[in-house]
Amino acid sequence: MTSLASASVTKVPHISHAVLRVSGPDKKGVIAAFTQVLSGHGCNILSSEQHTDTASSRFFQRSAFDISTMLTDKVTLSNGISEVAKRLNMKAEITWPPLRKKVAIFVSKYEHCFWELLLRHRAGELPCDIVCVISNHPDLASITQMFGIRYEVFKITKDTKAEQETKEIELLNSLNVDLIVLARYMQIVSDNFCSTFPHRIINIHHSFLPAFIGSKPYHRAFERGVKLIGATAHYATADLDEGPIIEQDVKRINHKDSVEDLIAKGRILEKEVLVRAVKKHLQEELIVEGNKCIVFGD
Amino acid sequence: MTSLASASVTKVPHISHAVLRVSGPDKKGVIAAFTQVLSGHGCNILSSEQHTDTASSRFFQRSAFDISTMLTDKVTLSNGISEVAKRLNMKAEITWPPLRKKVAIFVSKYEHCFWELLLRHRAGELPCDIVCVISNHPDLASITQMFGIRYEVFKITKDTKAEQETKEIELLNSLNVDLIVLARYMQIVSDNFCSTFPHRIINIHHSFLPAFIGSKPYHRAFERGVKLIGATAHYATADLDEGPIIEQDVKRINHKDSVEDLIAKGRILEKEVLVRAVKKHLQEELIVEGNKCIVFGD
Amino acid sequence: MTSLASASVTKVPHISHAVLRVSGPDKKGVIAAFTQVLSGHGCNILSSEQHTDTASSRFFQRSAFDISTMLTDKVTLSNGISEVAKRLNMKAEITWPPLRKKVAIFVSKYEHCFWELLLRHRAGELPCDIVCVISNHPDLASITQMFGIRYEVFKITKDTKAEQETKEIELLNSLNVDLIVLARYMQIVSDNFCSTFPHRIINIHHSFLPAFIGSKPYHRAFERGVKLIGATAHYATADLDEGPIIEQDVKRINHKDSVEDLIAKGRILEKEVLVRAVKKHLQEELIVEGNKCIVFGD
Amino acid sequence: MTSLASASVTKVPHISHAVLRVSGPDKKGVIAAFTQVLSGHGCNILSSEQHTDTASSRFFQRSAFDISTMLTDKVTLSNGISEVAKRLNMKAEITWPPLRKKVAIFVSKYEHCFWELLLRHRAGELPCDIVCVISNHPDLASITQMFGIRYEVFKITKDTKAEQETKEIELLNSLNVDLIVLARYMQIVSDNFCSTFPHRIINIHHSFLPAFIGSKPYHRAFERGVKLIGATAHYATADLDEGPIIEQDVKRINHKDSVEDLIAKGRILEKEVLVRAVKKHLQEELIVEGNKCIVFGD
Repeated sequence: MTSLASASVTKVPHISHAVLRVSGPDKKGVIAAFTQVLSGHGCNILSSEQHTDTASSRFFQRSAFDISTMLTDKVTLSNGISEVAKRLNMKAEITWPPLRKKVAIFVSKYEHCFWELLLRHRAGELPCDIVCVISNHPDLASITQMFGIRYEVFKITKDTKAEQETKEIELLNSLNVDLIVLARYMQIVSDNFCSTFPHRIINIHHSFLPAFIGSKPYHRAFERGVKLIGATAHYATADLDEGPIIEQDVKRINHKDSVEDLIAKGRILEKEVLVRAVKKHLQEELIVEGNKCIVFGD
Repeated sequence: MTSLASASVTKVPHISHAVLRVSGPDKKGVIAAFTQVLSGHGCNILSSEQHTDTASSRFFQRSAFDISTMLTDKVTLSNGISEVAKRLNMKAEITWPPLRKKVAIFVSKYEHCFWELLLRHRAGELPCDIVCVISNHPDLASITQMFGIRYEVFKITKDTKAEQETKEIELLNSLNVDLIVLARYMQIVSDNFCSTFPHRIINIHHSFLPAFIGSKPYHRAFERGVKLIGATAHYATADLDEGPIIEQDVKRINHKDSVEDLIAKGRILEKEVLVRAVKKHLQEELIVEGNKCIVFGD
Repeated sequence: MTSLASASVTKVPHISHAVLRVSGPDKKGVIAAFTQVLSGHGCNILSSEQHTDTASSRFFQRSAFDISTMLTDKVTLSNGISEVAKRLNMKAEITWPPLRKKVAIFVSKYEHCFWELLLRHRAGELPCDIVCVISNHPDLASITQMFGIRYEVFKITKDTKAEQETKEIELLNSLNVDLIVLARYMQIVSDNFCSTFPHRIINIHHSFLPAFIGSKPYHRAFERGVKLIGATAHYATADLDEGPIIEQDVKRINHKDSVEDLIAKGRILEKEVLVRAVKKHLQEELIVEGNKCIVFGD
Repeated sequence: MTSLASASVTKVPHISHAVLRVSGPDKKGVIAAFTQVLSGHGCNILSSEQHTDTASSRFFQRSAFDISTMLTDKVTLSNGISEVAKRLNMKAEITWPPLRKKVAIFVSKYEHCFWELLLRHRAGELPCDIVCVISNHPDLASITQMFGIRYEVFKITKDTKAEQETKEIELLNSLNVDLIVLARYMQIVSDNFCSTFPHRIINIHHSFLPAFIGSKPYHRAFERGVKLIGATAHYATADLDEGPIIEQDVKRINHKDSVEDLIAKGRILEKEVLVRAVKKHLQEELIVEGNKCIVFGD
């Protein structure tokens, strides 16, 4: 047991660069403006991506930069960036190294997404610490313990839901959780819960949204006779299955597939799509704009 | 011009086998029953596929068989198959060679699906004769004429729609058209038209149904921020975009893609999905069951 | 620990049908011939697939049939099938239920394929018993033990290889192992070892064969600048990476991907391709013909 | 006819921005350096992509910029860029608008890639003028003429090859051809021809390179029993099928596919892969480094 737990910690990559993310109305000179601030403070830009949505005239930028040669300090650089952002009427956010967020995973009884998160973390692909696993059932406690992670059960009934969510929020806040991953958690989280962690809850839905919003998507896919099934990772918002989409993928099926086959094939999709979305979030490669995600780094 | 037209004719494959398609309630011995009839009449089975939908206990079979060694004749064999079908309470249908249907293509102004049908036919991939092209606009007449195909314009307004459809039906019937392909035809065909040609009208919808049913799917895909766009070929029924799905496919997009990019990428999908569906129909590889298609031969 | 191990056992599906696989020179009436034997013995055919390679005039059939209503017994039916096969100069093989083979997994230090096999087995997707894990290193012992499976280390050096393989063969035979899965086992198994288990060893190669045969395929893919990486599951034969291919898949990469990125992306491919191939073998859906696999059931 | 030809011209997009492409040894400040030159000359950067190959410490950049607000002139800006490039020991290249290259297409008898190029050009997706079609056969003259394009036949025999290539080069030079597309041209072009147009000849090979280099790849794919076929677009160099890869894709096949089926399925791949590669080249999104392509804009 101990070996599994300790191994997982050592392989997580050490991300030593900072990330600047910018969004706002497009205007002339915006790329040069932020580049010059970073450059002027002695920070070497390692990579930089920009995107302009020409329909809405909105501009987006993500730059990774090395702070080891910074001539000033974090506060001074932040102020410099803020001034430019203010002048250009834009939003700018810097994430300082190490990029290693604290993550809580919510599960119920399905294991596949949970295992994939644990194993991909163990393989060093997810730069984060999994600080706790929260469930409405005790079933996945033993798996969690193998990986040396805290497991907390909050049983949910219609009557206790609000109260239990309050306790969950307390726990999550006490652990300074940055990101919540709903790994096939079979409860609808409340509007209040969602708005407590805006763009910090990632859910996996087992369909190609917006097709088959809501419950039993595989059964409905079977009924409709579609030729592909899908999975969608999105930020959870008050509107069920309507939050900003981070990642989607599909898999070919045919008439030989029963509902059970769709469920089995879907597991492969769900776990991979969820991990890709979580990785994007952890690497600060996402900018949410309205109800859409700009996904950098592909 | 002449060379284009004549070349297209010569390459169409000559399909010399017959096809038996069977559907009905599953029961013991059904595979053996039909196999024995064909075998007993001296017909060699070239290939045979079966499918049992265990949820509904429905059975489906498609067998291609050689009639060159048939010991009896078509009527006798048909009677033999009908008797077995009746005894087993099943539906059985034989299509005799050559499998070379008469096809009418409906177009408006978009060219891409139309070109693909013409060129894949010219390449010998579609075993059919394209006997006429019907449009509500004159735009694609010159392309059609290059391929030596008759082009008829039926202008449609709200007032003339019923009347014009009646004339279209007359023309289609007079030409003994087996299959109608709506190749991005920008008119909704009426319930009456659909029911005149049940499971004989194939439409291409430019989304991954059931996502984005109805108009402007690429615009809505852009708005929703999906990560894949799709196309769906289905039999047209009275319920718009709700008919049995024959084929679907998707293509990855990202935030850099404008609506115009989605439309351009979508064209590649639409034309390929439509041709695959038409080919399946022409080769008698489809069995419609309720609102779903069994697709053999993949 | 105990819970992990016991859970895995209970979910494995109970396959209660028998499977007939036939191959040989194509001739008239062959489909009807075997169908009639099964039917004549009271066995209901649940599904049946045939394939004729027209280039070589070779015929292949796989039929799953229910033996609960068999009028005779296994020996009599086997004899009936053998007689027809002999008359038609074909090879016929019946596998009786339960289809639940004994499997040994070979590993070295890479975990990803091994975990996927263990977890997909635990999810009930692989109808087999994993009777032992063999490695040239002790590293994966603790994972193996969590799943309650025997772990044996056979250290391999150039000098001890032949001797150690002999011991491995003894162990595998004593456990009546049906299938050996090389789950990124970092040793080349000898010709003698391969020929001891013909078409009973499945290897995963981390490239799209025949591209990048041999060592370090991801490094060579990076050097060549390919736009997709691949993985190939095949039966191990005396010719390295040249055995019959069971399954392959690819994944898009781009110039941003380092060799390490290719390795990480490749892991996702390798584990999925290997599991699909193992599943095909376990369900008796493969017929090896020369150096190719006929893959039924897709 | 006239309508086809004239329509194709009008839809070609007018690209009014300039493109800067940079490559060389990575060093601190390189992103800021070029950005500041463009900005300092009043050019607004519309989009910018960078890539650092960490293994080789090589840096690559592509920036699209608007010259309508340029404060100086093309010569002055070019000089400014050249000075920075020289100081940083890098290679820098500016392409001025309009980005509308002159293209020659080489064909033999296969039509599919040729049609796709013609039709995608007609749809406005390829920003270029197709100034002539060169063939070793007269077969595709009538198609070419429909689109109002010049068609020249240069018959090739072993004895006349060098001489004929000389004439082809004369014609291509007289037409100021920027890019040569070998659209399933069934002749191996000589080393001399290749080196006359370095990184200006795009070939489509009908396999997933480096698998099945050379002739008859579909036959060899069939023999090997692979589960996917592929197509590769690459710059033609003196080493046959070994030039820098621009684009690749694959398509699933199975044991039911004959060699003829592979050829038919392959056509769909070839035409799409070739068009994508040509489009990348026309939009100046490629930087060749050694034997690899950096592909921007995906």
